[in-house]
Amino acid sequence: MRMYDLIMKKRNGETLSDEEIRFMIEGYVKGEIPDYQMAAMCMAIWFRGMTDEETSQLTLCMAASGDQMDLSGIEGVKVDKHSTGGVGDKTTLVLGPIVAACGGRVAKMSGRGLGHTGGTLDKLESIPGLSVAVNSEQFIRQVNEIGLCVAGQTGNLVPADKMLYALRDVTATVDSVPLIAASIMSKKLASGSDAIVLDVKTGSGAFMKTVDDSILLAQKMVAIGTLAGRRVVALITDMDTPLGHYVGNALEVQEASATLKGEGPEDLTEVCLILSANMLELSGKGTYEECLQMAKRAIADGSAFDKLHAMVTAQGGDARVLDDPKLFGQAPFVEELRAPASGYVQHIDTEGCGIAAAMLGAGRERKEDSIDMLAGLYLAKKEGDPVQEGDVLARLYTCESEKMEQAKQKLLSCYRIGSDKPNTLPLILAKVTKDGVERYDIRS
Amino acid sequence: MRMYDLIMKKRNGETLSDEEIRFMIEGYVKGEIPDYQMAAMCMAIWFRGMTDEETSQLTLCMAASGDQMDLSGIEGVKVDKHSTGGVGDKTTLVLGPIVAACGGRVAKMSGRGLGHTGGTLDKLESIPGLSVAVNSEQFIRQVNEIGLCVAGQTGNLVPADKMLYALRDVTATVDSVPLIAASIMSKKLASGSDAIVLDVKTGSGAFMKTVDDSILLAQKMVAIGTLAGRRVVALITDMDTPLGHYVGNALEVQEASATLKGEGPEDLTEVCLILSANMLELSGKGTYEECLQMAKRAIADGSAFDKLHAMVTAQGGDARVLDDPKLFGQAPFVEELRAPASGYVQHIDTEGCGIAAAMLGAGRERKEDSIDMLAGLYLAKKEGDPVQEGDVLARLYTCESEKMEQAKQKLLSCYRIGSDKPNTLPLILAKVTKDGVERYDIRS
Repeated sequence: MRMYDLIMKKRNGETLSDEEIRFMIEGYVKGEIPDYQMAAMCMAIWFRGMTDEETSQLTLCMAASGDQMDLSGIEGVKVDKHSTGGVGDKTTLVLGPIVAACGGRVAKMSGRGLGHTGGTLDKLESIPGLSVAVNSEQFIRQVNEIGLCVAGQTGNLVPADKMLYALRDVTATVDSVPLIAASIMSKKLASGSDAIVLDVKTGSGAFMKTVDDSILLAQKMVAIGTLAGRRVVALITDMDTPLGHYVGNALEVQEASATLKGEGPEDLTEVCLILSANMLELSGKGTYEECLQMAKRAIADGSAFDKLHAMVTAQGGDARVLDDPKLFGQAPFVEELRAPASGYVQHIDTEGCGIAAAMLGAGRERKEDSIDMLAGLYLAKKEGDPVQEGDVLARLYTCESEKMEQAKQKLLSCYRIGSDKPNTLPLILAKVTKDGVERYDIRS
Repeated sequence: MRMYDLIMKKRNGETLSDEEIRFMIEGYVKGEIPDYQMAAMCMAIWFRGMTDEETSQLTLCMAASGDQMDLSGIEGVKVDKHSTGGVGDKTTLVLGPIVAACGGRVAKMSGRGLGHTGGTLDKLESIPGLSVAVNSEQFIRQVNEIGLCVAGQTGNLVPADKMLYALRDVTATVDSVPLIAASIMSKKLASGSDAIVLDVKTGSGAFMKTVDDSILLAQKMVAIGTLAGRRVVALITDMDTPLGHYVGNALEVQEASATLKGEGPEDLTEVCLILSANMLELSGKGTYEECLQMAKRAIADGSAFDKLHAMVTAQGGDARVLDDPKLFGQAPFVEELRAPASGYVQHIDTEGCGIAAAMLGAGRERKEDSIDMLAGLYLAKKEGDPVQEGDVLARLYTCESEKMEQAKQKLLSCYRIGSDKPNTLPLILAKVTKDGVERYDIRS
């Protein structure tokens, strides 16, 4: 078998066999197939696509390319959640405790932030003492004891994805549905959970710009997971506006903590309840409605907040910051952004907010950059809110005063204010299961 | 400027600017743009194509990527010929002397054979003593003195093409019209001739399988050359059957020599006369009809044969072999292939003949292989010929007896014999100039 012939086949619109896909991924990981041949293949796939069978096989071969987590030591259904990336997305910190409080088993491996996107691990590390470096024994013990662990990757998981993603990133082949689906699902399969809820972001700031494209991607991923014997559901959620009011590491932990106490913003609370209910339903805890009520109760009775407390403590963190957010401290430089005109906030550029927060020190441009845990944004006004000229639109926090001005200009450019009240999208636009697609009230 | 953005543009079907194409080729030759990015670009070009302007700019940048021949020391119009490669194609050895005998200036750099295709340099080297390693001073002096020199490349001509071709060859991106056109024309432009006659082979054994595709490629190349200020004409010629009766190095020199004496096969003689007439017309020697008559006279009066004699002598070769072919010697092992049935030769697989000849030792599989100058084929029966069972179809020549049997089987499989007399294509199917396309009697 020669990689040349496989490139030619795909280029000509033919279908690759299971053996051919295995040969390609194994050869690439071993270094026997060079980057330039794989780059040509990725571009051919960008143009020709892949069948569901091809995508599934690609995913399975990628998942098998390195270590695979063995979670058999955890009793019950292990449930995971994946979001395709967002700004101010602190849902893991909220739904993990909710699901655990309702008896679910959340064994979650998370990542770090890069560019305009925040990472759950960075957020957690803003809690003094907390460690995300948990070995697999501890990981399994903690999930058995309290139902919840959020940790960094251990071992060499899915090296094929690391190599392929790095290559796609420099050859303009990132936005290919089968390649995105295989990348996400290979990591989920290797992470070992039995059930997976996918949060597919859609909108200007996301890979998938339209609801239809997002549904296509979701269908691919659900099909792959189902073929691999996992229970999978995907929700298409709006990424046209940031979730909650805060962007930044310690700031988002405080907002997540408030949400678990029932004091969170409406949009974040709603998304977290819906995702939690789906995770619980997949875990066999009842019907969707029963699970939604269960999740609401876990907030109301404080049991979800207690789970976050327990997890932070178990991972060595000082949980007192959850009770008294002042213990986080506050960034020394705070400035307000005021509305330059009256009207309605018609749009907030989500990706731009992520960039502004990164400029303040909340994110990193390169992997090796360090992060300012206290830096970030408070978005006082959100899409649809009425404003008067001079109202506070947002507050900016940083530890380095020289970073303030540029970030302020960037954030100002993210707000679009106009005279008409905008139509806003529902938060959840559609739900994709192995049985079909359910669309919600969608602006056409 | 970033290569990433250029790949994205081309992938999305946009047009690259002159500056972008220059950036890409200069960066690639300097090693600043890696193979994997160029591989993704080549695949994007395969799918999206290139405009005439893009292809011209690509060609000019490639031609400028290394040394360029300065032929200003040669008086008169320098004329070159390029064939897209064939089996048994000894036309250069015939038309070069004809054109020189009629007062044309043929300053030709040629290549070596690889795979099933023969190379003019290899053929010339079957003449004892002849050297194709001619420095540029000698080259210019010889063309001024006798009107003709055929030599190997000197200097570092078109390194961008060497790099790109090697990459395309392993990434299934060879058969892209703009990339083929730029590859051929960049070498022709860098070789410095004023006028170029292109011989675009068509048919099962060629890159371009149909006449229409060949015309498209020819039009691209004529447009590029014209934009670069050269006089260019392209002929679309049939590659469905080998040219002449002989395949192999010394064997083809003998056939070329016979053709210059007026004793050559009809098809080879006709193609060479037509190509020569076009070269002479581009050189300003008269109308096409006048040039054709001139070419015929050069064969009839022996002046063309004398030019081959003069060139061989000037390049250190023993020209006595031209007068007495027995001086070449003959391969010790000769076998006949006999017709397994009666009927007509309906088809001969051209590429297969090239492979059979290479099996006998006449060609090389890898660049570093050596060549058996006396090995090769004599095709006694050609397309359209009637045969009786047991007639000699062909003779095979080799210096290594163990190579005979496999080659014989291969050659037998190239002949298709049937009861109907086949329609044969005219040798020249179309002519493409900057003013348009002229098609000849073409079987539909």
